[in-house]
Amino acid sequence: MLDLNLLPDGGISWLDASGPDCNIVLSTRVRLARNIAHRRFTVRSSAEECKMVLDEVEAASNASAQLRDASLIRIDELGPVDQQLLHERHLISRELAGLENDRGVRTGAALLTDGTVGMMVNEEDHVRLQCLKSGFALADAYADLERLDADLGRRLTFAFHDEFGYLTSCPTNAGTGLRASVLIHLPGLVLTKEIQKVLQGLSQVGLTFRGLYGEGSEVVGNFFQLSNQTTLGKSESELLEHLGDMVQKVIEYEEEARRILERDAPMVIADKVWRAYGLLRYARNLSFEETMNLLSGVRLGVGLNLIPDVSVYTLNKLLIFTQPAHLAQQEGRDLGDPALAAVRAAFTRHLLEADAGR
Amino acid sequence: MLDLNLLPDGGISWLDASGPDCNIVLSTRVRLARNIAHRRFTVRSSAEECKMVLDEVEAASNASAQLRDASLIRIDELGPVDQQLLHERHLISRELAGLENDRGVRTGAALLTDGTVGMMVNEEDHVRLQCLKSGFALADAYADLERLDADLGRRLTFAFHDEFGYLTSCPTNAGTGLRASVLIHLPGLVLTKEIQKVLQGLSQVGLTFRGLYGEGSEVVGNFFQLSNQTTLGKSESELLEHLGDMVQKVIEYEEEARRILERDAPMVIADKVWRAYGLLRYARNLSFEETMNLLSGVRLGVGLNLIPDVSVYTLNKLLIFTQPAHLAQQEGRDLGDPALAAVRAAFTRHLLEADAGR
Repeated sequence: MLDLNLLPDGGISWLDASGPDCNIVLSTRVRLARNIAHRRFTVRSSAEECKMVLDEVEAASNASAQLRDASLIRIDELGPVDQQLLHERHLISRELAGLENDRGVRTGAALLTDGTVGMMVNEEDHVRLQCLKSGFALADAYADLERLDADLGRRLTFAFHDEFGYLTSCPTNAGTGLRASVLIHLPGLVLTKEIQKVLQGLSQVGLTFRGLYGEGSEVVGNFFQLSNQTTLGKSESELLEHLGDMVQKVIEYEEEARRILERDAPMVIADKVWRAYGLLRYARNLSFEETMNLLSGVRLGVGLNLIPDVSVYTLNKLLIFTQPAHLAQQEGRDLGDPALAAVRAAFTRHLLEADAGR
Repeated sequence: MLDLNLLPDGGISWLDASGPDCNIVLSTRVRLARNIAHRRFTVRSSAEECKMVLDEVEAASNASAQLRDASLIRIDELGPVDQQLLHERHLISRELAGLENDRGVRTGAALLTDGTVGMMVNEEDHVRLQCLKSGFALADAYADLERLDADLGRRLTFAFHDEFGYLTSCPTNAGTGLRASVLIHLPGLVLTKEIQKVLQGLSQVGLTFRGLYGEGSEVVGNFFQLSNQTTLGKSESELLEHLGDMVQKVIEYEEEARRILERDAPMVIADKVWRAYGLLRYARNLSFEETMNLLSGVRLGVGLNLIPDVSVYTLNKLLIFTQPAHLAQQEGRDLGDPALAAVRAAFTRHLLEADAGR
């Protein structure tokens, strides 16, 4: 069984809610897609070629200052619960976790990480460098990543074209290979029914949104991942600045929506957030989706200073640890076990009781 | 404003949940309909005649041992909130509270009570002697009432016919004039969907059911009033024994239903009762109907020993004090004030917090 305690902070240091605007923006993620020159893209590679790529990347990483003490986790050697667990921690993509299709996990698929900075190997591209930070921290995350990119680039030759930039398996990633995203909580805009307008506005300026688990995932609990759509034709700093400006605006819209709710419907909001708290605190059976929706209500209540006894850290922990694979691993159960709903409720209850000091 | 503190126990000593089977049977009520001979029934009486009836009854009561220290409350001198308040305490009928129709409250309408034993004057009949006890206590309640009836009968001449027995305004009450009812909580039979069968069975043996507020009221919160339908052709003791036997059976059916729920769906039940508790404990807005339904859930949880921190006394208090007139009187508000939902939630929360010891 995978022991995530071997990872510094279990790979989820961002849960500590130490970053800027961390009540509304849970985390910032930046990734760079890179491929090794003169090797076939992963989708066309044989198992042997994938393994060679992994060996080369691992050797280069060992020589880099940032990843010298990093853990290498062979995804292809894990069971399905552990694979999904890493995905639930936002450390590996659906594809790398073998959740995308029936083909399962590719030979040589691996995660190399020091907890905050790391990379997926043999995902859609040979290397996906990534950095995950607490709160709204695009510049910080990219700075760490740029350092790692430069470091690895000295040891590996990345496929690069003078006109197209970094070459990637899917053309939508070519150019900078950069995708930056923030995981943002927008209950105010959902409750005031402004959310569609805001999301449409974002798509008009080249940004896109996804659910809690990235591409193809549904929006639950009013959590949205906002990210850049284009990777080509602009510099990294232009892309980051543009996304940053837009996210800043969305934060302001959300804050304005919350002010309107507080002004026009204080009782309705108080009732809503406290009911969510009451259910999380006492229910004995909680589905994941209901949990996300109730956590959204409590998070709003904490953001509006209506609920004093819950920390954002606890809310972040609940977001991660009430997911199916986390509960299944903890209890030694199957992913589909219906008893997980009771385990989820007990876990949630105990964390909230601890925060309330009893 | 009516000060119910002047009544011993505010007329609601049964709330203390001291009676037999008090978790399932909240209270027992027995009443005897009596009319003074040679006076017109109340519906045909002038205001003066009603006033004369009241004076005669009051004089007779003052001479009785049981009612020597009783309070006389002139319903016709109260405002609508206070009238409804007495009705909410089950001390006066809908009719006496003027809630039945647009005619308002009859002159001389009064409640005379020492808290447990008492009478309504100038209701549908001249006198409705009544006794309200905690739990399942038909014999006890009737014994108190029989004493009062005999006592008053020595000073007042009741209309009595050798063949028909006591004469009453409505023929359905003639004979014994006795109606006995128990207020019973049947969530187990509702959840197992056995309730219709049980209620149909009762109607086949001459019993009937009503909601929380007697005739014409809807069932809320799984609370049923079970009572005898017929008053004629049987003795008082036969009527009471028959009702008692049937209620005993219903209690057994309810207990059996609860055992089945505990055996077949323990998680579903635990989840249901704890969610009800969580909502009552934290909601900021509660309608009366939702409150009754949630109280039903918590009462079931307490009955099944799932919820340790709530007393049946508290549940009984909540049943009475979260009603509209009680909240309106307490806060000096109108009955229709939408803010009562917030007052109800606050009251509920504080009582449950007190029970939980924080």
